[in-house]
Amino acid sequence: MIARARSLGLICGALPPGPLNAITDVEGVKVGHHTLRDGDLLTGFTAILPHPGDLFRDKVRAGLDIINGFGKSAGLVQVAELGQIETPILLGNTLSVGTGFNALVTRALAANGDIGRDTGTVNPVVLECNDGWLSDIRARALTEADAFQALDAARTGPVEEGAVGAGTGMSAFGFKGGIGTASRLVSLDGRGYTVGVLALANFGNAGDLVLPDGRRPLPPAGPAPGEPERGSVILVLATDIPLESRQLARIARRCGAGLARLGAFWGNGSGDIAVAFTTAGRIGHHDRADLVALVALNENRIDLPFRAAAEATQEAVINALLAAPATSGRDGHWRPSLADVLRAPS
Amino acid sequence: MIARARSLGLICGALPPGPLNAITDVEGVKVGHHTLRDGDLLTGFTAILPHPGDLFRDKVRAGLDIINGFGKSAGLVQVAELGQIETPILLGNTLSVGTGFNALVTRALAANGDIGRDTGTVNPVVLECNDGWLSDIRARALTEADAFQALDAARTGPVEEGAVGAGTGMSAFGFKGGIGTASRLVSLDGRGYTVGVLALANFGNAGDLVLPDGRRPLPPAGPAPGEPERGSVILVLATDIPLESRQLARIARRCGAGLARLGAFWGNGSGDIAVAFTTAGRIGHHDRADLVALVALNENRIDLPFRAAAEATQEAVINALLAAPATSGRDGHWRPSLADVLRAPS
Amino acid sequence: MIARARSLGLICGALPPGPLNAITDVEGVKVGHHTLRDGDLLTGFTAILPHPGDLFRDKVRAGLDIINGFGKSAGLVQVAELGQIETPILLGNTLSVGTGFNALVTRALAANGDIGRDTGTVNPVVLECNDGWLSDIRARALTEADAFQALDAARTGPVEEGAVGAGTGMSAFGFKGGIGTASRLVSLDGRGYTVGVLALANFGNAGDLVLPDGRRPLPPAGPAPGEPERGSVILVLATDIPLESRQLARIARRCGAGLARLGAFWGNGSGDIAVAFTTAGRIGHHDRADLVALVALNENRIDLPFRAAAEATQEAVINALLAAPATSGRDGHWRPSLADVLRAPS
Amino acid sequence: MIARARSLGLICGALPPGPLNAITDVEGVKVGHHTLRDGDLLTGFTAILPHPGDLFRDKVRAGLDIINGFGKSAGLVQVAELGQIETPILLGNTLSVGTGFNALVTRALAANGDIGRDTGTVNPVVLECNDGWLSDIRARALTEADAFQALDAARTGPVEEGAVGAGTGMSAFGFKGGIGTASRLVSLDGRGYTVGVLALANFGNAGDLVLPDGRRPLPPAGPAPGEPERGSVILVLATDIPLESRQLARIARRCGAGLARLGAFWGNGSGDIAVAFTTAGRIGHHDRADLVALVALNENRIDLPFRAAAEATQEAVINALLAAPATSGRDGHWRPSLADVLRAPS
Repeated sequence: MIARARSLGLICGALPPGPLNAITDVEGVKVGHHTLRDGDLLTGFTAILPHPGDLFRDKVRAGLDIINGFGKSAGLVQVAELGQIETPILLGNTLSVGTGFNALVTRALAANGDIGRDTGTVNPVVLECNDGWLSDIRARALTEADAFQALDAARTGPVEEGAVGAGTGMSAFGFKGGIGTASRLVSLDGRGYTVGVLALANFGNAGDLVLPDGRRPLPPAGPAPGEPERGSVILVLATDIPLESRQLARIARRCGAGLARLGAFWGNGSGDIAVAFTTAGRIGHHDRADLVALVALNENRIDLPFRAAAEATQEAVINALLAAPATSGRDGHWRPSLADVLRAPS
Repeated sequence: MIARARSLGLICGALPPGPLNAITDVEGVKVGHHTLRDGDLLTGFTAILPHPGDLFRDKVRAGLDIINGFGKSAGLVQVAELGQIETPILLGNTLSVGTGFNALVTRALAANGDIGRDTGTVNPVVLECNDGWLSDIRARALTEADAFQALDAARTGPVEEGAVGAGTGMSAFGFKGGIGTASRLVSLDGRGYTVGVLALANFGNAGDLVLPDGRRPLPPAGPAPGEPERGSVILVLATDIPLESRQLARIARRCGAGLARLGAFWGNGSGDIAVAFTTAGRIGHHDRADLVALVALNENRIDLPFRAAAEATQEAVINALLAAPATSGRDGHWRPSLADVLRAPS
Repeated sequence: MIARARSLGLICGALPPGPLNAITDVEGVKVGHHTLRDGDLLTGFTAILPHPGDLFRDKVRAGLDIINGFGKSAGLVQVAELGQIETPILLGNTLSVGTGFNALVTRALAANGDIGRDTGTVNPVVLECNDGWLSDIRARALTEADAFQALDAARTGPVEEGAVGAGTGMSAFGFKGGIGTASRLVSLDGRGYTVGVLALANFGNAGDLVLPDGRRPLPPAGPAPGEPERGSVILVLATDIPLESRQLARIARRCGAGLARLGAFWGNGSGDIAVAFTTAGRIGHHDRADLVALVALNENRIDLPFRAAAEATQEAVINALLAAPATSGRDGHWRPSLADVLRAPS
Repeated sequence: MIARARSLGLICGALPPGPLNAITDVEGVKVGHHTLRDGDLLTGFTAILPHPGDLFRDKVRAGLDIINGFGKSAGLVQVAELGQIETPILLGNTLSVGTGFNALVTRALAANGDIGRDTGTVNPVVLECNDGWLSDIRARALTEADAFQALDAARTGPVEEGAVGAGTGMSAFGFKGGIGTASRLVSLDGRGYTVGVLALANFGNAGDLVLPDGRRPLPPAGPAPGEPERGSVILVLATDIPLESRQLARIARRCGAGLARLGAFWGNGSGDIAVAFTTAGRIGHHDRADLVALVALNENRIDLPFRAAAEATQEAVINALLAAPATSGRDGHWRPSLADVLRAPS
């Protein structure tokens, strides 16, 4: 039985979590994992589907923040320019971005016969971290079929955390890292809304982790402090609050505050990227009207999702670490589990 | 009688101009000049009022593009972050930015007793070019009272162009520069909308100017080609098309295309800045609702205002040059008139 | 015999071109094409190699400008953050970015056994335009092997232009587009330096093209004006001027001025991206020194490469159009040749 | 006797501080305060002089990060574009930016007769926070003479902290805020270098402050949690590490990590801005060489100044709060002292 941060008394901030304390608390959002574990291979894909329909025909408004741009993601230039996402979001390892791109294209072409014919092309969004410490990333084992499995596995409800999907081979703060998630509830005009974050945690130097209660757990026999912060962390934020894309970019930036509260400083070799989307106010690819109505947040109320983004990011990363067991990987490399260290008598 | 570009057959692009071919074709937009001419002083302020009401209480959505950031403008950081403008826009000379800032603060405080008490402060937007070639900019002759005169002179209707207001001492492409304006009409969902541009033209090397008919008029006895492009150009774009601030920033960027068509390459020493706002979809400072409805442009239709921005910028600059007479200024410095050169038998 | 712009009297600006008037005038820069022509397939890859050595071990300083971000390129986030490029630059069609990514990874891993083991991963730079009007882009015919052929074909000396490599299926301003190149010579501290641009031209509405002599050639039976500007244009700028990456980003931006002079306004659906690198001041991946010496341009002299970037971009695009013959492609789609139109008696 | 963070056991991170634990540990950097306390006026200016010479003739390389752009600073557009600072840096209250701008212009003109005559103009850098809670900001009491006093008071050696200079009327996390500083020592190629930060702390909601030991001190009778984060925080970072301006911008961004560790999330109404400069590698305004030699940091070593920036920012803010006594101001508004709360028996 895996304990999550909150059940251990590790409370990140003041806002209440949603029922699942997961990105899937945002209605319609689905997450799917596909894990590849085979000898020196500990890797996989994770897919986030913003809504159950076809993303190309029915796009979501989005924004992003490049917290630190040492990263090889695909699709971000267009998301920043147009403020919209038109494919599922795929997370994988660094060298699998091309394959993830191809998989998303395959699916988009299959579902939309007009792409590349009567309409433009499609912008796949693929994000990545480097799992090369535990996994043989040079083997480039992930295939399009693996990506399809992650996409097809996507469902609403609880999200599996830890060493799963894209998180299988990841490390953070000298511990085993991986996938974690959390959510926050906010109230606007008397109605409830949700902000959910899914983290792919693969960042942070051993010795730098700070828990919300001030403890600084150390990985046993971890690498020496001062080792360059290599790795990366990807944050995907979903919400049902109606927002402009500029507002979503501002909210995405606050995921970086959550990382910093954990002791990170967004190291040079860490590709730290936050992508935020709202399920409200979709954009129809074939919409014929010149002018479109939308609803947005009164900017004076944006501190609520700001706070939610920072808190949910912090908690999602701790959840990722707590859920990931101690793991041996490539060439005998090893990462301890934060949960084990916290359980040990001190 | 001053001839404008269009009456000389200098047609910039394909879209039709508005009735005044001016930024004031956008309903409610007012422009005011205050000119200071006294010996070696050839300077002034120009004010653009996005609407007739109080801008602080009733803000306009805005976006901007820093085409080249060699400039000392005030207020742009907040416009970029929040996507809104909450004061009139003031244009002056480079060393008068502080005074312009103070003048806008004075007016905002007078009209809003809650600023700095029960609500936050105010973000004055002041843009500038360096008129030091023709005017004694070191004298710092412009006062708050001069700025008030420009603000109070603002009105709808035709806009005075050339060596007037902030344009009094400006130069462009080796000619006398100054204030120019133009507009374009576009149709959306069967209704007409307007895009207007006001330019403060003080940029471009002698010898680089290209007219839309391919002619390359040379200033007589101008400075040698290769002289650094010092100066700057400010573009203020107004429209009544409903737009998100991200869309306004994209449109503002297209003002730079209009400059390039004139032969400019946005030189190192030139502060080339475009600020765009829409009179549609105002933002109430005291709006209590958490969520607000707005209308925005279908992104697939944004080529229309893109094209309008480029065309109107190009034409506004030519209008500025055509309206400005040959001028002698500080220390005998002299700038010829483009209109004179075009009239001369070749 | 293909006539280039200059031989037809179409002179873009004032700076002199290099001996080849090509990006390969920059010493050490190589270009390679691989063309795929087969029935409805008119596509290919083009590779630019910044220097003859291993790019991963010996990186080049770089900067970029997202003129309009409707594009699916890979690698730009990291280039912007770190100011360096560590692979060859690959140009292809939009849906081939994943395959191009994979090809560059394959080559980098083969040449560097430490990637993903004792050092980090690698950041492939792949740029693209949509050739779907003339070519069956949905077939996704390009393979890693095709990319390798483009990489292996790279050489110094004259660059083949027009409907070749990545340019095989491209269109611009209603004409057949493709690959073009041009260069400019500048003098600094008494020594000669070169700025070269290679364009992949696939942008611009029919009817918008303006030649440097003011002519506006119309494609016969082209699409109606007002058709959305779909397509994209990629500019790769090479120089041997010693520059900081911030300076390279500023120079890259001026490629957009060259496009605007041709009549473009950087349309919504056009991914217009400029990447600039210098062969001076390489960055050693394994450099052990904490502090490194470099030489940079005095910022006050940067107008020279600014001007060169704008001029060479404009000329490279015209060269691309002039070199591309009238072409029939997918489903009977057809693009006329600018050269034919200019040759026709008017 | 004022206790600083370190003497209370509040240790921010792992790097050692410099001898003064102040921005003035960076050789040549001077700080000056001028305080205005008179009835409802609690305000002032603080000046940071990057080196003892004339900044206009001998500029420093600089970079910046707009952590949250709800701010009215002057000069940042040009700093971002050119990567250099050419005046002292002045901190004041929000409505004094125009006056600060004027004061810096006055001094630059007096020292450089060529400004606005034979050379361009000058770019004053003025940063601000809103001290309107404790001080009558509407009175606009600060004059150019006040700014001159701050500039003239600038000296090396220990820096006065707390309710002094621009910090006189500031608040943070519901406590009295103000000026604080800290520094970190790093070693590169066997030589010691310093990173120093000066903070003007006026940000953060009551109840959000987290100390490095995990304590969350609450202001007695503070405003209710959920009050919008109004205020702002300015960070000025100085170093003697040789750096490119792009690297300085990356380092400036890490000041935001220091803020987040204190519990901030960079609230909507908070203008959170970090400006970083290096005293190494000056830029001569009259430098005639086209190419200039400089030394920069190997990017692979940049985690050291990243870490230093985050740690010094966090500590500088705590020092600001600890040094500021409980203060009564305008209309009976009151802010308690963090030091008093920490001293109180719990």
